[in-house]
Amino acid sequence: MNEMLERGKRALAAQPFSVLIDAALVAYEPGRAEIHIPITAKLKQQHGFVHGGVVSYAADNTLTFAGGTVLGSGGVVTSEYKINYVRPATGDLLIARATVIYGGKTQAVCRCDVFAKTGSEERLCATAQGTITKMSGASEPAS
Amino acid sequence: MNEMLERGKRALAAQPFSVLIDAALVAYEPGRAEIHIPITAKLKQQHGFVHGGVVSYAADNTLTFAGGTVLGSGGVVTSEYKINYVRPATGDLLIARATVIYGGKTQAVCRCDVFAKTGSEERLCATAQGTITKMSGASEPAS
Amino acid sequence: MNEMLERGKRALAAQPFSVLIDAALVAYEPGRAEIHIPITAKLKQQHGFVHGGVVSYAADNTLTFAGGTVLGSGGVVTSEYKINYVRPATGDLLIARATVIYGGKTQAVCRCDVFAKTGSEERLCATAQGTITKMSGASEPAS
Amino acid sequence: MNEMLERGKRALAAQPFSVLIDAALVAYEPGRAEIHIPITAKLKQQHGFVHGGVVSYAADNTLTFAGGTVLGSGGVVTSEYKINYVRPATGDLLIARATVIYGGKTQAVCRCDVFAKTGSEERLCATAQGTITKMSGASEPAS
Repeated sequence: MNEMLERGKRALAAQPFSVLIDAALVAYEPGRAEIHIPITAKLKQQHGFVHGGVVSYAADNTLTFAGGTVLGSGGVVTSEYKINYVRPATGDLLIARATVIYGGKTQAVCRCDVFAKTGSEERLCATAQGTITKMSGASEPAS
Repeated sequence: MNEMLERGKRALAAQPFSVLIDAALVAYEPGRAEIHIPITAKLKQQHGFVHGGVVSYAADNTLTFAGGTVLGSGGVVTSEYKINYVRPATGDLLIARATVIYGGKTQAVCRCDVFAKTGSEERLCATAQGTITKMSGASEPAS
Repeated sequence: MNEMLERGKRALAAQPFSVLIDAALVAYEPGRAEIHIPITAKLKQQHGFVHGGVVSYAADNTLTFAGGTVLGSGGVVTSEYKINYVRPATGDLLIARATVIYGGKTQAVCRCDVFAKTGSEERLCATAQGTITKMSGASEPAS
Repeated sequence: MNEMLERGKRALAAQPFSVLIDAALVAYEPGRAEIHIPITAKLKQQHGFVHGGVVSYAADNTLTFAGGTVLGSGGVVTSEYKINYVRPATGDLLIARATVIYGGKTQAVCRCDVFAKTGSEERLCATAQGTITKMSGASEPAS
């Protein structure tokens, strides 16, 4: 595994909430990040779908990591984002893929699509857009 | 406790993810809802602040419940929302308070402020705005 | 008229597009701003309502001015915002009122409600939330 | 010119505000729309850039038209959208390109990128995401 992805994985593993949710960083390279979350019972709402809060977490955190890939070695946070839910998330795996649309010196604007995968089929569940901001003194995406 | 709040509490208790996060509905009345989440280690990121995903969950779910108070007896979902994080959330308790800005027949536009409480002091951490949509066939806020 | 409002009015008058739209700044004081736009034929869409683009302009620009009241003497711009349209805007006057929710050193998070006034009755048409950012070297809200 | 684009052009020409801004619909086909606006003095703010309100108008209206291409023959409106400004818009021509991300029966979620073109070079100025909703009884995008 490359060194950049290793660093990203360590940052994610240092977030107790990301561990609670079983999130895994599977891509972390200049301009993009991808997080996977196995769909398990604890992440659902009362109708058996993945809770919107989990989908939001996935979008938010993946946006942060994507922004982190272009904002240099300092830590980053999501300043704001917006999400549209388009389908209930159901299946085996939640996949969030974020890309950088614009990267400045201190802020990046990123997009993230969240898919639910059942077998080999992926369906779009939500799409998000937000601003990631560089912090001073930190070292990896913080959320 | 009033009957409406009882119903809301049952809806929240039926969401495994809300149980995982220890969310409690403390107000659920026409035009507003309030959810509390004790700030514990499992909900944090690597710098000791509440993870943004938890703050998002709080905003999203409280928006949904607020919308649910005016959209009739059918179930509701959050269609979309936007959140601005303004301060790291740290302290004892996360408090999300949502109100209905506009309630139509099938959609409501709501706002939510999220505070972190330390002792008796509350500080604004995030503010959100979104659209809640009525579903057909369900019975309580679903998220 | 106070000196701060005078300065704000000059900034607005220096924007050709605001002049084209007949926008008037009627309040500009620490933490809030208000812009009025007479509803005339040129600002409408095909069904006789005020065009969404005008409502957006009103929200955007009033957010900028509100942020400008707390971000010091440097110029400011809207970095991003979100708007929900809740009713068609029709009547005599469009009124946008923005307040600062959070003011930091370089950014402010603001909200704006846009009303359409017919006679003495105001009806909410849209509500917005966004981030205003301080620029270096400029002197008044720029949009 | 194809018949669909003709219809779209007539809808845009029926909006006095779009005429005031000199907006032209140049693409209107299933899943996407594109609007061009010549950058002229009347559309600027005090520093010589295109006013944010014009950029917002371009994003909003192009989102509406894009949504209209997939929501059937009834009229559509933008229910809500969010925009991030990433660079000042300057040059000869403002170009807004919107695509449908998700199309349902009554709502579509769309994205729009807004570029400023100088000579043959296009630069991204803003990016937006929003919800377009079908109305009953109308016939073309209304904004």
